[in-house]
Amino acid sequence: MSDATRDIEALIELMARLPGLGPRSARRAVLHLIKKRGQVMAPLARAMAEVATSARECAACGNIGTADLCDICRDPKRATGEICVVEDVADLWAMERGQAFRGRYHVLGGTLSALDAVGPEELRIPRLIARTRDENVREVILALNATVDGQTTAHYIAEALEGTGVSVTSLAQGVPIGGELDYLDDGTIQAALRARKSVQ
Amino acid sequence: MSDATRDIEALIELMARLPGLGPRSARRAVLHLIKKRGQVMAPLARAMAEVATSARECAACGNIGTADLCDICRDPKRATGEICVVEDVADLWAMERGQAFRGRYHVLGGTLSALDAVGPEELRIPRLIARTRDENVREVILALNATVDGQTTAHYIAEALEGTGVSVTSLAQGVPIGGELDYLDDGTIQAALRARKSVQ
Ligand SMILES: [Zn+2]
Ligand SMILES: [Zn+2]
Repeated sequence: MSDATRDIEALIELMARLPGLGPRSARRAVLHLIKKRGQVMAPLARAMAEVATSARECAACGNIGTADLCDICRDPKRATGEICVVEDVADLWAMERGQAFRGRYHVLGGTLSALDAVGPEELRIPRLIARTRDENVREVILALNATVDGQTTAHYIAEALEGTGVSVTSLAQGVPIGGELDYLDDGTIQAALRARKSVQ
Repeated sequence: MSDATRDIEALIELMARLPGLGPRSARRAVLHLIKKRGQVMAPLARAMAEVATSARECAACGNIGTADLCDICRDPKRATGEICVVEDVADLWAMERGQAFRGRYHVLGGTLSALDAVGPEELRIPRLIARTRDENVREVILALNATVDGQTTAHYIAEALEGTGVSVTSLAQGVPIGGELDYLDDGTIQAALRARKSVQ
């Protein structure tokens, strides 16, 4: 096997590790890239290298950005006194696509899980509590997935904020049982946000 | 939208153009890459840039390599007097995974198609005819997909080589009707190659 074949094989193996691509679709994708190496592959490699170098987690909310604080945390217009709590950056992106929420976010990075031994410290929950004090927060909106672990996490946060004067609400109408936010259409997310209800 | 978000959005759009990935799976893949930006994303960007720069079509057979002639065409041990004709580089890779064929290849780059106005000149067929003379070829093995256009192309090549003394065979047993080579398991490809039959 020559260097050429080795390079291409290595590329296929790296591509096959991406979620949603198996070995066969990785081969197809790499072949497609090689055929369009000028128009698609070179720009994609550059975009990837650029993001790999610059991307980092926001120190406040856990969103992805290129500075210490993400775009949303740096934007004074987003200091509305509302924080929307999501499990994952993909959920934050889904909320932003819905364009219904103008406050800030807090990305937990998962849910509490007895099974996987994930406790509050692993999930940026202490930082969320601190933010509600430091950022003058009136309302925490829980936009967690409608799974058992998501709802356990919601209850934990609601209890932790009890008596602090911060109102805790959750997305209500529209989130199907067992459903995941990132699968919902934008309209459903907007409706769920409008119909949010108190969990305290 | 900041530069950071724009870079990430641009990356998602480029990824979404890959076969097998839609906008949603592209977002998932990019998020995964960002989370693993050190171990996965940076090496992937480098591998992609490397292949984008170095990859080129073999002047003889149409395979992908990094030199004017591909590894297989440069390897004297592969000058067995047999040429295996495939539609696409993906099919060549599938044949190589089968490890049953030790000769050389000829990648047509498609099939003849009246509908799409694809003629022999578009398909490296004249170059195949020339190779059978120049490379002292005894046998041309047609490993084309079992589609109507694939079979039309097979017949065209068989007729073009009639009377030249080159024997023309085709993969027989194991290729399902309407099936595509790249979907077959390695064992099926090996069996089909062993049971190849003359089409002249
Ligand atoms: Zn932030
Ligand atoms: Zn070649």
